[in-house]
Amino acid sequence: MTNRIFNFSAGPAVLPLPVLEQAQRDLIALPGVGMSILEISHRSAPFEQVIQTAEKNLRSLLGVPEDYAVLFLQGGATLQFAMVPMNLLPAGASADYVLTGSWGQSAFKEAKKFGTVRVACSTESDNFSRIPRQEELSADPKAAYLHYTSNETIHGTEFDYTPAAPAGVPLVCDSSSDFLSRPIDVARHGLIYAGAQKNAGPAGVTVVIVRKDLLGRAPASTPVMLDYAAMAKAGSLHNTPPCFSIYVVGLVLEWLVGLGGLEAVARRNREKAKLLYDAIDSSGGFYRGHSRPECRSLMNVTFRLPTEELEKKFAKESTAAGLDGLKGHRSVGGLRASIYNAFPIEGVARLVEFMQDFRQKNG
Amino acid sequence: MTNRIFNFSAGPAVLPLPVLEQAQRDLIALPGVGMSILEISHRSAPFEQVIQTAEKNLRSLLGVPEDYAVLFLQGGATLQFAMVPMNLLPAGASADYVLTGSWGQSAFKEAKKFGTVRVACSTESDNFSRIPRQEELSADPKAAYLHYTSNETIHGTEFDYTPAAPAGVPLVCDSSSDFLSRPIDVARHGLIYAGAQKNAGPAGVTVVIVRKDLLGRAPASTPVMLDYAAMAKAGSLHNTPPCFSIYVVGLVLEWLVGLGGLEAVARRNREKAKLLYDAIDSSGGFYRGHSRPECRSLMNVTFRLPTEELEKKFAKESTAAGLDGLKGHRSVGGLRASIYNAFPIEGVARLVEFMQDFRQKNG
Repeated sequence: MTNRIFNFSAGPAVLPLPVLEQAQRDLIALPGVGMSILEISHRSAPFEQVIQTAEKNLRSLLGVPEDYAVLFLQGGATLQFAMVPMNLLPAGASADYVLTGSWGQSAFKEAKKFGTVRVACSTESDNFSRIPRQEELSADPKAAYLHYTSNETIHGTEFDYTPAAPAGVPLVCDSSSDFLSRPIDVARHGLIYAGAQKNAGPAGVTVVIVRKDLLGRAPASTPVMLDYAAMAKAGSLHNTPPCFSIYVVGLVLEWLVGLGGLEAVARRNREKAKLLYDAIDSSGGFYRGHSRPECRSLMNVTFRLPTEELEKKFAKESTAAGLDGLKGHRSVGGLRASIYNAFPIEGVARLVEFMQDFRQKNG
Repeated sequence: MTNRIFNFSAGPAVLPLPVLEQAQRDLIALPGVGMSILEISHRSAPFEQVIQTAEKNLRSLLGVPEDYAVLFLQGGATLQFAMVPMNLLPAGASADYVLTGSWGQSAFKEAKKFGTVRVACSTESDNFSRIPRQEELSADPKAAYLHYTSNETIHGTEFDYTPAAPAGVPLVCDSSSDFLSRPIDVARHGLIYAGAQKNAGPAGVTVVIVRKDLLGRAPASTPVMLDYAAMAKAGSLHNTPPCFSIYVVGLVLEWLVGLGGLEAVARRNREKAKLLYDAIDSSGGFYRGHSRPECRSLMNVTFRLPTEELEKKFAKESTAAGLDGLKGHRSVGGLRASIYNAFPIEGVARLVEFMQDFRQKNG
């Protein structure tokens, strides 16, 4: 057994051990191929099988309808912040953004470069501690699209419903940090994007699911690599794709299929998150969750301690105890436990134990 | 010993076996870290060490001066085809392109989207079988930059000199397919870019070396991920980078340092290429090189056989003999042996033997 620690990092994040073991076993030569996945041509039959199987499993897990394209791109969610308006926001039109935290704000800020954008709702005045209810969204019925962030990693909030966009307005979701953690109603979206490095795989690949009627709207001056239509036409192989990252995403998708699909995965995730939130709620106020209880993320559990000194001490001692990456994001402070799909329940139990122990000693 | 074959693929391409072995050994947990390189935060100390050591070795191998930034980006050379003009071609200015093959043409075509571009020289009328001499370049002394492709993978030609740009005109090089195969005079360039998947590592990362005075020229409407200045300011960590690909590039750079640096590597490459070109030249015309002898690439050896039927037969039988990926690019036909840094000389010798044998049977 390798000496592995519990990795609570917000992303890149823990991967399933069976996935790492398979990648390791086949790293020098894929079975029957005689070359490493790091070396084979992206135009070869073995790689075609890798990418096609990944797409097939993704479609099956999420129930992606036939009239949606699945793309494997580069540049992370941050490049999508630009690609979405470059492709979907025509000159003279306006796009709506729901701002529930830092990532929504970043998407909004980047989109401003490419046209008119409007805030359909912001929870900033509540310190991004909550998700708005549907009736709080003042969505423009003529918007080019309505953009939201389904999970905010830094604040630890998550939509527990799919927002309704006005009729004819495509709904666009940055699903980077809760992608594949639970079922999504793809058909209610125009476009869903996700950097892989939370739940879907390693850094270096971004999954985009886009309704095909939204393709082909980019101006002719769009870089070919940033044009969804060009990438869809080429099956994500306009040029050399990030082959290894796609391969690992494929292994993760097979692991998810083996777990019984996204309903089963969501059950596991609810169970893990409940353990942690219960530990917070039963601490007599020693631990205080950042998010309002009804808006809590199942992926990123954010909490504060009575003082910043205690928070520093907690971060230091938990790291020493083999619980790594619990320090909150530098922009908000506090603690954060990221417990994505691949994070083992044993690690959550260990953290709960550590929290109880720490509270007894310092409470 | 794993059952590995000889991989003549043009990219992704063969990697050094010691690099694959180290990546395999540490794939579950980096020594002393307890997490996989696929899982660690890009803001963590272990990853900082990975990317900083990679940059240090790259600077040392290529003699990159202090006033140049080294970036690790995504999107391959094809995204650079857009980023170069987006960053360096102001409105109203014009940029010069030297066209020596398909890749130069692709760069030129993409750049047209962003401003005025001009052909400083093209060898298309010679079927891209040669590299122009310096005196053939009609370079505009007022150009925003002069772009060339140091090695054309499809045609198998390579510059054996660094073109001189007019005074004050930055020289921009697409060095994707001969990067790190020999020394480059970085200081004579304004910008050098290279997709990693030939000589430098796996697919998924692009190395850019840019003179710092060229940073900060992109218009405010440039996507942040496509702005060299923003990426330089963030040390390539504006968002999550392709961590694993950068890690493998780092291992390749260490391997190159261990070989004795780029002069030693260039000697090996000349030796390997000579074996193959000698086999072509001594075949009594059965094998005919595509490139003129004085313009031959040391990386991609392209040749034709007397008939297309024989070419098909050669490709099929060589594959069966464990010599993979010799079929030429679909756009030009014929055969192509890509023999990048990591391609072993034993594989070249095996191909020479196969060529002699094939000629005896079919000549």
